Order: sequence, then C-alpha cells, then structure tokens
Amino acid sequence: MSGQPGPTPIVIADPRQMRDLILTARRAGRRIGFVPTMGALHAGHASLVEQAAAECDDVVVSIFVNPKQFGPREDLARYPRTLAADLALVGAKGAGWVFVPEASTAYPAGHATSVVVAAPAADFEGAVRPGHFAGVATVVCWLFNVVPADVAYFGAKDWQQTVVVRRMVADLAIPIAIEVCPTIREPDGLAMSSRNAYLSPEERRRAVALHEGLVAATERWQAGDDVAAVEETIRASLQSRDIPIDYARVVDPDTLLAPRPGAAAVALVAGRVGTTRLLDNALLPPRS
Amino acid sequence: MSGQPGPTPIVIADPRQMRDLILTARRAGRRIGFVPTMGALHAGHASLVEQAAAECDDVVVSIFVNPKQFGPREDLARYPRTLAADLALVGAKGAGWVFVPEASTAYPAGHATSVVVAAPAADFEGAVRPGHFAGVATVVCWLFNVVPADVAYFGAKDWQQTVVVRRMVADLAIPIAIEVCPTIREPDGLAMSSRNAYLSPEERRRAVALHEGLVAATERWQAGDDVAAVEETIRASLQSRDIPIDYARVVDPDTLLAPRPGAAAVALVAGRVGTTRLLDNALLPPRS
Repeated sequence: MSGQPGPTPIVIADPRQMRDLILTARRAGRRIGFVPTMGALHAGHASLVEQAAAECDDVVVSIFVNPKQFGPREDLARYPRTLAADLALVGAKGAGWVFVPEASTAYPAGHATSVVVAAPAADFEGAVRPGHFAGVATVVCWLFNVVPADVAYFGAKDWQQTVVVRRMVADLAIPIAIEVCPTIREPDGLAMSSRNAYLSPEERRRAVALHEGLVAATERWQAGDDVAAVEETIRASLQSRDIPIDYARVVDPDTLLAPRPGAAAVALVAGRVGTTRLLDNALLPPRS
Repeated sequence: MSGQPGPTPIVIADPRQMRDLILTARRAGRRIGFVPTMGALHAGHASLVEQAAAECDDVVVSIFVNPKQFGPREDLARYPRTLAADLALVGAKGAGWVFVPEASTAYPAGHATSVVVAAPAADFEGAVRPGHFAGVATVVCWLFNVVPADVAYFGAKDWQQTVVVRRMVADLAIPIAIEVCPTIREPDGLAMSSRNAYLSPEERRRAVALHEGLVAATERWQAGDDVAAVEETIRASLQSRDIPIDYARVVDPDTLLAPRPGAAAVALVAGRVGTTRLLDNALLPPRS
C-alpha cells in the first residue's frame, strides 16, 4: 500500500445522489469502476481499487457491512469497522467516491425481496452458511442499481462469491461487467482477509496451512494425481495444523460441479482456526 | 379498440439490441414507456399501451409467455398465442417496438437465479400457485434490465402482481417508475383477461359473478359493514353461480395485510369457473 496520503474521497450515503453522480459521469463519457466492500479494508481491497483506477476514469468504493449475509450466530456485531482508515486507503489508491449507505436505505421498511442463486450457491459456503449467498446476491443486485458502473471488481479469494455474482448478473441481464482480481497474500502466503484480525498469534501461525495445502495440491494436480488425491493433500495440510476442515474440494471453476476432464479446475478450502473461519482457493491449470 | 390499421411495430428478439435501442432513445431525451405482457392481448392491454403512448415518446411492448410463472399442472401449453393480432393491436395503439425474447435468452443455460418477494407474494395467488410470483418477479427484473424504460405500465386487474412488482422495485432500487392502470371490463362487467377465451358460453355467463360480487361488496363497504360482512357479500355472489372460491378478502392495498381503520382497502377475489381460474378486485375508498 502507498504510504503517501491521497486525496480524501467524497463520502455519499444517499442512494439517489450516488446514482445521479454515476449517471452524470457516464453521460460525460467517463468509465466507472466499482469496488463493493464491507470495509475493514486491507491490501486485497487496495489492489481492487488500484485495478479499477488503472482501467477506469472514476472509481466508487462501497462500504456496507450487510447484515443479511451474516447468520444469527455469526460475527456481524464484532466485524471490524475501520472507516477513517478505509477512506484514507481508498483515497490513496484513486477512489473518488465512497458510498456508505445506511441499512435503512438498503432495507427499507417492509423489505421483502431476496435474490436467490440456486446451484452454484448451494454447496461449500452456502451449505455452511445458510442464507449467506441470498444476502450477498440481494445486496449486490441493489448496489448494482444504485451504483450503475461499467465494471465491478471482486477478489478471487472469495471464489464462490464471484461465481454466484457472475451467475446472477448473467441470469438477470444486469448491465455491468464483472472482473475477478487475484488474491493478495501475506508474506507467508496467508490470503488477505478482514477476518485475519481475529487470529491470535498462535492461530495466525497455523493459518498458513490453507495456503500450504493449496500449493502442495497444485503440485499434485500438475503431477497428474486424481481429484481425490489432490483433495486429500489439502486436507492433510489442515489436519497437520489441527484445523477442522469445512471442505477441501476440487471443482469446475464456473459451475462448482465436478471438474471437466482436461479443463482448468479450482481447489476450494475452508477451515476453522480457533473460532475464525478462513477460506482460500487456487486455480488449477488445464492438464492433458 | 381502434379499427384502423396502425403502423407495424419493429419486432426485436435480441436483448442486447433491445437495450441499446432504449438507451439510445433515452440519451436523445426521449421518455420510454414499457408494457410487459404475455401476449394474447385484449382491450386491457390496449389501454396500457394507449396510456404509455399518451405519456411517453416511445412505447415498447414485450410479449413473452414466461414458463417460470406457470405451475407444472397449469395452462402454459394451451395459453393463447396470437402474435399477428397482438402486433397489429399494439401498433395501432402507438407501440413502436415489440420485444419477443426467446426463452433461451431469458433463461440461459445454467440459469439459477430467482427473485423472491416474501410477504406480499405469500398469500392469495401465491398460496394457490406456489412459485408463481417468483417466476413473475424474476422475469420482470430481467425485463427491466433489458428494457430500461422510464416507466412500466401494469393493469390493476392483477392487483397482487402490482404489489409484488412495486415491492421488488423498491427493495432492489430498480430505476423504473411503476404505473398501475384501471381494469378494463366487458359490457357486463367481467374483467378483461386472456384466460376469458377458455370460457364456454355458459361459463362466460356465470363469470360475471366476480364483478357483481365486488360491486355489491363496494356498496356494503360504503354502507359501513365490517370486513367480514363485505367479504361474505363477495362469497355469496360466487356461490349463487356455483363458482368455487379460492379467496374473497378485503385487505390493505399496499401490504395485503388486514386493512387499516379508516383507510382505503382492496377487495380481492379468485374463483374457478369450470377449469378456468378468474381473478378480479375492487379498490374500496377510505371511510370514516
């Protein structure tokens, strides 16, 4: 991340004002990039803003801790809120506008509508976190109407989320391009995540098992091992660090079903390090 | 309906072409009206097109018999298809474009997304026809992205549908105005419906019971009868013509919950005339 202070972005809470600003800029021929976030921004988000700034004339970042994508026993209340630092970060990376809606505008009185994506949302995070992806899809659909940008940027770290969002955009003909950007990692390989802040020093050391498992799995994949053996490689890495496994699977990157012979695949892993759930994944190249 | 031939509208099947035409017209400052239909058009639809043409510079009518809003034992296969007559009708009423998507563009391979509106869609038609309103909301959401008009016109005859669509538009911040236009009726009062074509002559005579029940109910409402008595008036009318009743209820026009004291209400009725389900409703004015 740049150490230089950037210009302070304009903070907007009103959806209508946000939409009007975007439409005015687009009518003037400007290309708009959008980075939806829940705040607690880290270098992963910073890379999305940088990518958007490199490709677009104006960049909007939304910061909204969406209550509907948290389950009743999840970490909504303690999810980190770091607005001042977030504004400084995205301003330094080139975002001109930050959209910070109130929950009451995203969910007006009598709100009753959900966007539900069936197949690609059913397994993995969808199975562990019932209702999570309906919460994600609903708020992202709302955000795409309020922030009608040319292109939206998502991190590959939440791979299933990118599949669900792309499926929704295709199915509802939402007029926005989706760009998925590489996972940003700590020096030891741990994927950047706002939830890494929950880890104790001892948990933080063990957490690298997800990345190490994926690296080993990628080697086994390229050596020609079958899917079950590649998955077992990931599981062994988590087990060696006493991390309970939610899933460790190799699937098709677009459908999250069984991988097609010879095609690229994605290895998805989720585990529990103490009370903190961590996710990671690795794209596995096509092999003959 | 006008007996004069109108100009033939331009028929468009490609969603991208449709959207580009609308956006080009809007950039030129033109106001666009949109009338979504399932075809088999009658004087009710004609009135929507007329209203759109009176208020807008360009009018788009979509004709799409949406399979997702029919249940497995419903009348999808026999739903009337009258495209040539439909085109002539909407052309005469001032529609310049008719959007006729293929099902494969509305539902691309791997389609998995549904828009679900809970509370106002749960009762009445939603209870009789499980999944119906998810089918409606999903296709209307898709249509509003492909046909990004200024305003969309719906008939009051399908009152619950208008409530569901307005709820979805508010909840997802879909940037389109919704205008609800009065029900158009046959000379004896039967509400215009594409499904009236299914009625035998004898059924057609009995079908007026829905309208007659609503007229009598409106009188009882204005005379100060309580809700139960007003509902019983509707039921008695259907029973007198041997029409099995799906529901006959007086509810709040916006929430479809119990009416608020002193406020306007809506009487909703649905019955089965032979094998044909018919719906109707009446707005009941505020009373002190």
